[in-house]
Amino acid sequence: MNVTESLIKNINQKSNPSVVGLDPRIGNLPPFLKERSLQKFGNTLQAAADALYHFNEGILHSIHTIVPAVKLQMACYEVYGAFGVEAFERTVLLAKKLDLTVIDDSKRNDIGSTAELYALAHLGSPPLIEGVGDVNPVDFLTINPWLGSDGIEPFVQQCQQHQKGIFILTKTSNPSSAEFQGDSSSDSPMFREVSRYVHQLSKQHRGQSGYSSIGSVVGATHPGEAEVLRSDMPYCYFLVPGYGTQGGTAEDTMPCFNQDGYGAIINSSRKICFAWQDPQYKGKYPNPEDYGLAAKEESQRMKEELLQALKTSGKLPSNW
Amino acid sequence: MNVTESLIKNINQKSNPSVVGLDPRIGNLPPFLKERSLQKFGNTLQAAADALYHFNEGILHSIHTIVPAVKLQMACYEVYGAFGVEAFERTVLLAKKLDLTVIDDSKRNDIGSTAELYALAHLGSPPLIEGVGDVNPVDFLTINPWLGSDGIEPFVQQCQQHQKGIFILTKTSNPSSAEFQGDSSSDSPMFREVSRYVHQLSKQHRGQSGYSSIGSVVGATHPGEAEVLRSDMPYCYFLVPGYGTQGGTAEDTMPCFNQDGYGAIINSSRKICFAWQDPQYKGKYPNPEDYGLAAKEESQRMKEELLQALKTSGKLPSNW
Repeated sequence: MNVTESLIKNINQKSNPSVVGLDPRIGNLPPFLKERSLQKFGNTLQAAADALYHFNEGILHSIHTIVPAVKLQMACYEVYGAFGVEAFERTVLLAKKLDLTVIDDSKRNDIGSTAELYALAHLGSPPLIEGVGDVNPVDFLTINPWLGSDGIEPFVQQCQQHQKGIFILTKTSNPSSAEFQGDSSSDSPMFREVSRYVHQLSKQHRGQSGYSSIGSVVGATHPGEAEVLRSDMPYCYFLVPGYGTQGGTAEDTMPCFNQDGYGAIINSSRKICFAWQDPQYKGKYPNPEDYGLAAKEESQRMKEELLQALKTSGKLPSNW
Repeated sequence: MNVTESLIKNINQKSNPSVVGLDPRIGNLPPFLKERSLQKFGNTLQAAADALYHFNEGILHSIHTIVPAVKLQMACYEVYGAFGVEAFERTVLLAKKLDLTVIDDSKRNDIGSTAELYALAHLGSPPLIEGVGDVNPVDFLTINPWLGSDGIEPFVQQCQQHQKGIFILTKTSNPSSAEFQGDSSSDSPMFREVSRYVHQLSKQHRGQSGYSSIGSVVGATHPGEAEVLRSDMPYCYFLVPGYGTQGGTAEDTMPCFNQDGYGAIINSSRKICFAWQDPQYKGKYPNPEDYGLAAKEESQRMKEELLQALKTSGKLPSNW
């Protein structure tokens, strides 16, 4: 079973093709958590990173029975330097303990031997003074393809060696993604060059189910392009950002799924994690200590919306 | 004076347009340093990161009178998690104390609000529980343009706010860079789209000297393309990898310089830092404790080679 098939197992268990983005921002954390960290560490980087971790703890304990996977946006942690990286690492360990698939959203990229070090850092074992250290517990890493295949292969090698996976940024969800990735108005947009490359790579790393450990990031804000990319890369799982806060709807994400209802995992970050601040949930959960309950209810709502859309488009797996 | 003009001041002071890449790898460190860290911390991530920092310390004290700038490759540190990031941060502080320009080679990239967090992390101030923290002391950050302008602008904003600069990956030095960046065999390669964008941006952020805080990464392994890019982006400083170990010669880097002898800074990493292992220096410095002296001699040799090539091509600044 490759890592994507383990993800599919989790998806089947929860009947839910969604992923919660653990992208905590200090400004959106409940005051009681910030107070606690301030008391422990003063107004420092360490306090902010500590608050982030404890926030994640609450979210993870609330959502782990509903969702199959979480995605951690590295920027949210890296902004607190070494303390932030530690909060990232602790969150990953807790998520793995709760049997969630973990996606490390770091969009790493570099050339040859440096890409190799990033690959060891995120998917493999660090070289110690004597021998090597523990394998990083994350399951997937996002990577940026701009530097070409010799910047991607070292990641693929770690995937093979340690049963890990990658999602390659093929078409992103942001407004200016067309500038260098191109869009469907062009005959041969650059993102199609990338998708052809990703397809070839994914073909070589298929599991028994047909799905590959090599996946692709495909923005939900470009449904027409998603359709094209779906047929370009049939063996790839798509990691789909852009749902929720970025304006993509459940319907918009449907072209990212294969006819069998698999092949895509839809991310929602702020709308779930900061549901406690949303007028929609504030009435029901006026106490900020209940931020986990608000997140749980929003992730349940998202699941139902996705299942409804899958049903409407005739793609709902029969065993869900 | 913008950050590029501060870099130029350093370059003039040393009469040297080169940058030393502080890319320590545990396998290439002198045994006595590894022994010391092992004794302090056992065979752990912390020990490896500690050895990296102390190695850098020796290099920095040896080269700071010769070179104007250092570049830290983040992957080398990130592989040791939070401990590695701490070694990175400590190295930056020491380099700044020695009045070196510091380039943070992290190739970060993301969309909108996440790019903003990366920009705060590397060029700005982290948001604390109350107010914000200290501004990151690095001077420049490398960034990947694949996600388009809305992924770049947040970095530009921090540059303006805190007198920082960026180098945008326009054409990299690795063999497969042509795959998605294109090469000169095509009428409209993608890297020209990027260079046109970078040029427009650089124009808006020029200092009095004409040079902009927005720079560009241009590989030394493609001299023909460097010439084209030089005329595409006259206001940009070029950060030039690929010299030395990657096969680029001093002559190859000449098209990266403007006619005035400015506009480019040439990076060498392994050839300087690991000079103590090079047969060329091993005879003269057989004691690994002298690794700093070997690095110093190689950085002096590189300087002379660059100055000679600048002279030959009629670009040597008269005041050097």
